[in-house]
Amino acid sequence: MVKKNLLLAPGPTPVPHEILLEGAKETIHHRTPQFVKILEETLELTKYVFQTQYPVYVLTASGTGALETAMVNLVNPGEKAIIVSAGKFGERWVEIAKAYGIVPVEIKLPWGKAVTPEMIEKAMKENPDAKVVFTTYSETSTGTVIDLENIAKLTKGTDVILVTDAVSGLLAEPLKMDEWGVDVVVSGAQKGWMLPPGLAFIAINDKAYAKVEKCTNSRYYFDLRKYKKSSPDNPWTTAVNLIYMLNKAVKMLKEEGIENVWARHALYGEATRAAVKALGLTFFSERPGNVLTAVNSPEGIPASKITKLMRDKYGVTIAAGQEPMKDELFRISHLGYVTPFDIITGITALEFALSELGYKVEIGKGVLAAEEVLFKGLVK
Amino acid sequence: MVKKNLLLAPGPTPVPHEILLEGAKETIHHRTPQFVKILEETLELTKYVFQTQYPVYVLTASGTGALETAMVNLVNPGEKAIIVSAGKFGERWVEIAKAYGIVPVEIKLPWGKAVTPEMIEKAMKENPDAKVVFTTYSETSTGTVIDLENIAKLTKGTDVILVTDAVSGLLAEPLKMDEWGVDVVVSGAQKGWMLPPGLAFIAINDKAYAKVEKCTNSRYYFDLRKYKKSSPDNPWTTAVNLIYMLNKAVKMLKEEGIENVWARHALYGEATRAAVKALGLTFFSERPGNVLTAVNSPEGIPASKITKLMRDKYGVTIAAGQEPMKDELFRISHLGYVTPFDIITGITALEFALSELGYKVEIGKGVLAAEEVLFKGLVK
Repeated sequence: MVKKNLLLAPGPTPVPHEILLEGAKETIHHRTPQFVKILEETLELTKYVFQTQYPVYVLTASGTGALETAMVNLVNPGEKAIIVSAGKFGERWVEIAKAYGIVPVEIKLPWGKAVTPEMIEKAMKENPDAKVVFTTYSETSTGTVIDLENIAKLTKGTDVILVTDAVSGLLAEPLKMDEWGVDVVVSGAQKGWMLPPGLAFIAINDKAYAKVEKCTNSRYYFDLRKYKKSSPDNPWTTAVNLIYMLNKAVKMLKEEGIENVWARHALYGEATRAAVKALGLTFFSERPGNVLTAVNSPEGIPASKITKLMRDKYGVTIAAGQEPMKDELFRISHLGYVTPFDIITGITALEFALSELGYKVEIGKGVLAAEEVLFKGLVK
Repeated sequence: MVKKNLLLAPGPTPVPHEILLEGAKETIHHRTPQFVKILEETLELTKYVFQTQYPVYVLTASGTGALETAMVNLVNPGEKAIIVSAGKFGERWVEIAKAYGIVPVEIKLPWGKAVTPEMIEKAMKENPDAKVVFTTYSETSTGTVIDLENIAKLTKGTDVILVTDAVSGLLAEPLKMDEWGVDVVVSGAQKGWMLPPGLAFIAINDKAYAKVEKCTNSRYYFDLRKYKKSSPDNPWTTAVNLIYMLNKAVKMLKEEGIENVWARHALYGEATRAAVKALGLTFFSERPGNVLTAVNSPEGIPASKITKLMRDKYGVTIAAGQEPMKDELFRISHLGYVTPFDIITGITALEFALSELGYKVEIGKGVLAAEEVLFKGLVK
């Protein structure tokens, strides 16, 4: 069988050919006016993606580096931080806090649950000395998206800073940083940005930046004061070729229009959920978002068997669960550079794989459900 | 005039087309056996570059990230570290130490001077409680290379750890990590590796790693324990496309043979120094190495004027000094993917630019001197 690879994993996501080829352009020196001009234009365009007028800093790091940047620049050792933890990446906030001697006040929920504004309000009331709230907009390990817009209303106009990990959430879910009043937004390249991994982002407003200047945490590579000082240039050697790619990507995203990008992800999310339901499967998350759809693996079939078969036999890469939930769920992503036909391909491969592994599938039922949603959204 | 860009700066350096095109290959998922196999093979091959049997960890970061990794994993807050500081990157070691509350015992020398084994021996005797020595193998800001082989004899067999910043030195200068007994070697992609920026490396032997496990410093993204635990995989999302490029680069370097790589850099260094002398110019460094040749800018001509003219008019990018020595010196690099003819091109452009800026140049004199060295080394 001829195979084409299709990445329907929640990062890395597919990268368009024209972006890959930008990365193959000749490397130029990062401290030349020629390159700084490209970097400046690129960073200016990233603000549109975050819907902010505040600076966006680009880091040579994975998304975790940007999470650490947010934590170590905003909270002093010994201080409290309110942290929502309902999956792998919420837990990562907690781990980073602990690594720096910050006291996590955890709002700990089972994986798949979504924090509510009320829960955060309660934690804020009970911990008036906690001045930063860390959230995960889209929890990649569970596919759960939180009500960030209403959560932001709790901190807006107060002296409490709201930080959100939108590593995977940005671009797939509506996020209006300035309008909603989210103070710090973190993201990563290999997600909605349509880029390979290697870059991470942090957008920070003035209210949050005021804390950075006073923060006593030990930091150097991730010290935001250095980024601000050298802006628009980067304090360290920038990943030149990845910036070429980013420049192309933000231009493509701007041309598409951010509302259209959000709408595209919403439609794919709806189509995928319709297919999952039609196949008699159930959602892992109580509040599934449009980054990915997390599905409970059918009884007796470990999720890793499904993902392995889909990848090795059909070239379609989805993701199993993350430890310790590896075999409990599988995650079909619809994030980034994905077409309606990629969704159909993914569901077709899923039907094949499930059937082969002994799950009773009425072949075509999931595909039909997805196609109906896509047709309604795109054609009439 | 038709222009071709030529990078003769000490990073970023030129990247071969075949490596650039590797980076344009389809991004695959980083947690698949398909990718982990590539990563494992790549990391195994990097050991050859370091001349070590110990693990090499690859970071998604600039070289500074790898410097920070070495510092925060080896020295506790409040402890002393002996640091050689004779340029921008020696100073960076000191800055990182201070950022983490580590007490730097500085061997501070004027820029351009080379630390001697005797100076380090003295510092070690005076500070028996300092258990880690941080050096810069090739100080990129001055072109100075130190006598690392003999410095390593001071720490070998003792309980003192020797760390060297070989971000630019590796591949250009001989470095036999295991044989010499250098405990920790740090490097960066955009140097002798022939890669664009975005990756950094740290090779660490068992003697040094024993300290990592006991180190109490706050760290997360750069915590080497996490890298060891997930090895050969990366704890965070690896920069997949840069790893494709690295894989190709290490195969090319292995095919060339590390001794040949060292010899090539030595020859270019010699040719460049001969040209500089023939033009009546003087070296900035008292111990110039083969990464780059730092040249005192002729009286009355700011170095940045020379570099700007060479770059904007002729397409040849060399580097001026680094702050605060910006206009005092210029730096011609012969690092990485550079041919003998690139050296000739660089010297030709330098002669043109110097002449245009009023320095009395006998046109062809520098080129002839370089060509004679290259001819002797390559033809007969």
